[in-house]
Amino acid sequence: MGHFKINEKDIFFILKEQLNYGSLCKLERYRELDEETLDMLVTESIKFAKGVIEPLHEIGEKQGVVFENGQVRCAPEFREAFRMYGENGWIAASRDTKYGGQGFPQMMRIVINDQMYSAAQSFNMIPSLTHGAGHLIESFGTESLKERFVPKMYAGQWAGTMCLTESNAGSNLAATRTTAARDGDQFKIKGSKIFISAGDHDVAENIIHLVLARIEGAPEGIRGISLFVVPKIKIAPDGSLGKPNDVTCTAVEEKLGLHGSPTCALNFGEKDDCVGYLCGEENRGLAHMFQMMNQARINTGVSGAAIASLAYQNALAYTKERIQGSDLAGRKPGYIPIIDHPDVRRMLLWMKATVDGMRSMIYTGAYWSDLALETPDGDKTNHYKNLLDFITPILKAYCSDMGFRVCETAIQCLGGYGYCKEYHIEQFLRDVKITSLYEGTNGIQSVDLMGRKMRINDGAPFEAYMSELEKFCQENNGHRLLGDEVEGLSDAAKKLKTVSLELSKLSQSDPLQWGSHTYPALLCFGDVTISWRLLDMAVVAQRAMDNTRETDFYQGKVLQAKYFCGVTLPLTLARLDTCLRKGREIVEIPDEAF
Amino acid sequence: MGHFKINEKDIFFILKEQLNYGSLCKLERYRELDEETLDMLVTESIKFAKGVIEPLHEIGEKQGVVFENGQVRCAPEFREAFRMYGENGWIAASRDTKYGGQGFPQMMRIVINDQMYSAAQSFNMIPSLTHGAGHLIESFGTESLKERFVPKMYAGQWAGTMCLTESNAGSNLAATRTTAARDGDQFKIKGSKIFISAGDHDVAENIIHLVLARIEGAPEGIRGISLFVVPKIKIAPDGSLGKPNDVTCTAVEEKLGLHGSPTCALNFGEKDDCVGYLCGEENRGLAHMFQMMNQARINTGVSGAAIASLAYQNALAYTKERIQGSDLAGRKPGYIPIIDHPDVRRMLLWMKATVDGMRSMIYTGAYWSDLALETPDGDKTNHYKNLLDFITPILKAYCSDMGFRVCETAIQCLGGYGYCKEYHIEQFLRDVKITSLYEGTNGIQSVDLMGRKMRINDGAPFEAYMSELEKFCQENNGHRLLGDEVEGLSDAAKKLKTVSLELSKLSQSDPLQWGSHTYPALLCFGDVTISWRLLDMAVVAQRAMDNTRETDFYQGKVLQAKYFCGVTLPLTLARLDTCLRKGREIVEIPDEAF
Repeated sequence: MGHFKINEKDIFFILKEQLNYGSLCKLERYRELDEETLDMLVTESIKFAKGVIEPLHEIGEKQGVVFENGQVRCAPEFREAFRMYGENGWIAASRDTKYGGQGFPQMMRIVINDQMYSAAQSFNMIPSLTHGAGHLIESFGTESLKERFVPKMYAGQWAGTMCLTESNAGSNLAATRTTAARDGDQFKIKGSKIFISAGDHDVAENIIHLVLARIEGAPEGIRGISLFVVPKIKIAPDGSLGKPNDVTCTAVEEKLGLHGSPTCALNFGEKDDCVGYLCGEENRGLAHMFQMMNQARINTGVSGAAIASLAYQNALAYTKERIQGSDLAGRKPGYIPIIDHPDVRRMLLWMKATVDGMRSMIYTGAYWSDLALETPDGDKTNHYKNLLDFITPILKAYCSDMGFRVCETAIQCLGGYGYCKEYHIEQFLRDVKITSLYEGTNGIQSVDLMGRKMRINDGAPFEAYMSELEKFCQENNGHRLLGDEVEGLSDAAKKLKTVSLELSKLSQSDPLQWGSHTYPALLCFGDVTISWRLLDMAVVAQRAMDNTRETDFYQGKVLQAKYFCGVTLPLTLARLDTCLRKGREIVEIPDEAF
Repeated sequence: MGHFKINEKDIFFILKEQLNYGSLCKLERYRELDEETLDMLVTESIKFAKGVIEPLHEIGEKQGVVFENGQVRCAPEFREAFRMYGENGWIAASRDTKYGGQGFPQMMRIVINDQMYSAAQSFNMIPSLTHGAGHLIESFGTESLKERFVPKMYAGQWAGTMCLTESNAGSNLAATRTTAARDGDQFKIKGSKIFISAGDHDVAENIIHLVLARIEGAPEGIRGISLFVVPKIKIAPDGSLGKPNDVTCTAVEEKLGLHGSPTCALNFGEKDDCVGYLCGEENRGLAHMFQMMNQARINTGVSGAAIASLAYQNALAYTKERIQGSDLAGRKPGYIPIIDHPDVRRMLLWMKATVDGMRSMIYTGAYWSDLALETPDGDKTNHYKNLLDFITPILKAYCSDMGFRVCETAIQCLGGYGYCKEYHIEQFLRDVKITSLYEGTNGIQSVDLMGRKMRINDGAPFEAYMSELEKFCQENNGHRLLGDEVEGLSDAAKKLKTVSLELSKLSQSDPLQWGSHTYPALLCFGDVTISWRLLDMAVVAQRAMDNTRETDFYQGKVLQAKYFCGVTLPLTLARLDTCLRKGREIVEIPDEAF
């Protein structure tokens, strides 16, 4: 039996009943679409994930990546899957039709990725990066660059990468040293990049690297970085493939997980013959790259949640089948399935709520990403842009850290079997760990959230977030069945606001002390956001039950929200207090005392 | 550079300054020892761990275990190391000299294991199991069994195992089906066991299995289980090795970690020729086995903490060397070591406190294990036995779950490098995960703690624990520099007491609801115990500083306690409240709603 277990009802509940995603079809841009078409897309993406992608999870893990004679080879099955992935339109489902996209709402890219990451994270990194790289060229490239590169990338003929990190420029891109020297209309690129996901492979006939580098004479720091399109194989003027470009893979990392995905060190211009094309404005490369980075950050959260969902579903299936021990209350004679043991059930309910809440957070953010481009009433577009800006680091960090926690808990449900390779979950644990590390560690996300995202536009992103949250609390204040939990959320929201504003002041007066509180504060934003989304789902479910619709499913939504809020928000309040502690131990402890 | 990084000062601070372990030499049993001798033993164990055991960590991981033609082979280096381990007296350092032990205090076994597990967990399971199995025979076997088996096991000539789990009897040993049929003075054993750590290998010339089985006609359930000594190779009357016994290894598990350690499925008596010797009383096997299980549970906590300590030390070394990013407060120009970034420092200080606190919990429990045999004033022996009983499930579960959390945090300190095999820490994460699963999952530990351990002897173990904790709070009430933290601990202790007693009532009136609270309650016991031990160390360190002794080291003990208590105890209080929640979502959610 395969590992790809999902509950389609949970997915459609969020899309249709909670978010009413069909309403996006009223937007000018999507006026030719209707909800039924969106539903079909989701159903088809699940079928494709199940039929074509799922087997790659195990194949990638077992076969790994071969690095021989300077060439990287993935499992051969990856190649055909990538071709079909492109041919079926999954890479560019949400992109304009002009360069081969399908013109679906932005949010569909994320919903599709949820299914595809569940099916095989190590494989799905390739099309996901290809989309981001293609989209970057589409957004900032010249017409000639777009025509030459984008359609082939969206079609799954060529793949893409993002090349940022260097051995001394990881979290700190200001230290980027790769250079670009003018050579007529083109540039010659020279430098080394590390940790490049899908940096080399044989899955597509060409790989298009999006590379950060400094044009000779550019200013120091991040304002001197430009963005370049650097193909693995040169492109002849007629668009056909020419000779290899001067890009060499020098190493492939051995990692905790993601064994099917090549993480490469690349040298550009070892022989002074690495051709690159400027993409966008000179010295604005990092600003441009943020489009791809923000998408990648959201997708990182998506994959954290997607793997957590799998881990939960696999653990759930096990606990229903595994017979062990007697009923604590003597309800049944003999031995019982372990799902009936309260401590196992505690883990299952916590995982269910966390997984469902993360998915709702992500899909809500995805929904906002469409409204950030266009709103029905025209003037709220900025509001949604601000919401999306603010929630991006929360999605990335919270869903990756909680995704890991869910996998850990899922292993625990299986006891000793959870430690055995036979049961898949140990691989989920290993694979998901990367999500807290790449695309900016979760520490970096917390600095982004509590620093830049609190400051920009005079605090508009923070205000947008708080106003949506407060609106929910007001609208559901005194709710007949969820009133206590809404009050708990409201209390947490108030304290979250106070603490965030205090920390903002602290960032100016005492940046070191502030820096010691950013990550715990991010966790609190995550707890509050997921509780909010769970309660929102519970309100919708309660309404459905009032209309006497099927009860077990909706009852689950209500109970998971009550349980999660009940055991989480009191701890969140306590943690928020610790974010204003005056104790300066972290700052003051001498290095020698560690 | 090797991975075996420890801070000897931290170890000796707990042993000498916090616990004054030299005082054990005043006990009648240890009157020939002195503190200097104990110090030497610790120093020598660290040297041996470093020189002989450390290389096995990587060798075991890389070479793994070979299962061919029904035989299991470990890395060849394990064999010589095991021989030296026995020859040097490490296996039985704390056992009576009569059967080849060294006669050191009980606690030294645990202190030595701390070093040996740090050096190579997968290897150290063999001598650790050998000790437990030998000790079991020494405690319950006939004189003839003792003479034949124990000295060779203590000397590292033969190894040992514990064979409990069957495919349908994991957490629930009542379901044990392996049988023993009388055959003169001996028994014929028949049945299958799984998940047997070091169940087969070529590290020693014989393996002595301690097996739970039912004698024909024995009562159902746990009162019909007996304990047997079953050698891999039969022993001739003169003690020499005879023919192979009828014990077959049928499978070796593929696991998340511990690749150097063979986890085996064993068949006993496939050809009706498996000889076993009854050890102890008929039908009392499980009670006897609890001696080995309790030792194994403590050792599981030890290995969780030991690996956490390594992960912390390795992350610490990295953060001192890795240069990245600028100082948030502009204290220094240019780029700085990442240890100077507050969020990295937050992780380091939390790890430092958690590791030091776990070690202190464990060594304190180890110290109690000697006083549980004999106290200076003679009448408090039971008090220490009760303390040890109560703290065993806390040590096992808390140190394994927190050990995992520390490894996760250590990876986070390294960013993307933490995900790469090159940096050791990913292996610690994989290896340590087993500790929350074997020797009774942490869920089982929580049921033991909040159930049996609250009930037995009219609640004497719980009372012993609370009285020691309250004594500390009273003695340090109003402490000049740690008063606030002691008050925080005192508040937590009071609530912990109330909640525990309420839960005890609930275990009778509503066992399912009770069962949904046991694990969170165990976590609270862990938080309180570690905070108590950290504050105790801080009080000692403060006293040393008042005497104007070296300050950085002692300052670290004070600051780690203040920080840990400051950010942990408020959450513990909140979690304790959730343990009395009336919400019954876990119990009431229908299976179909998951």
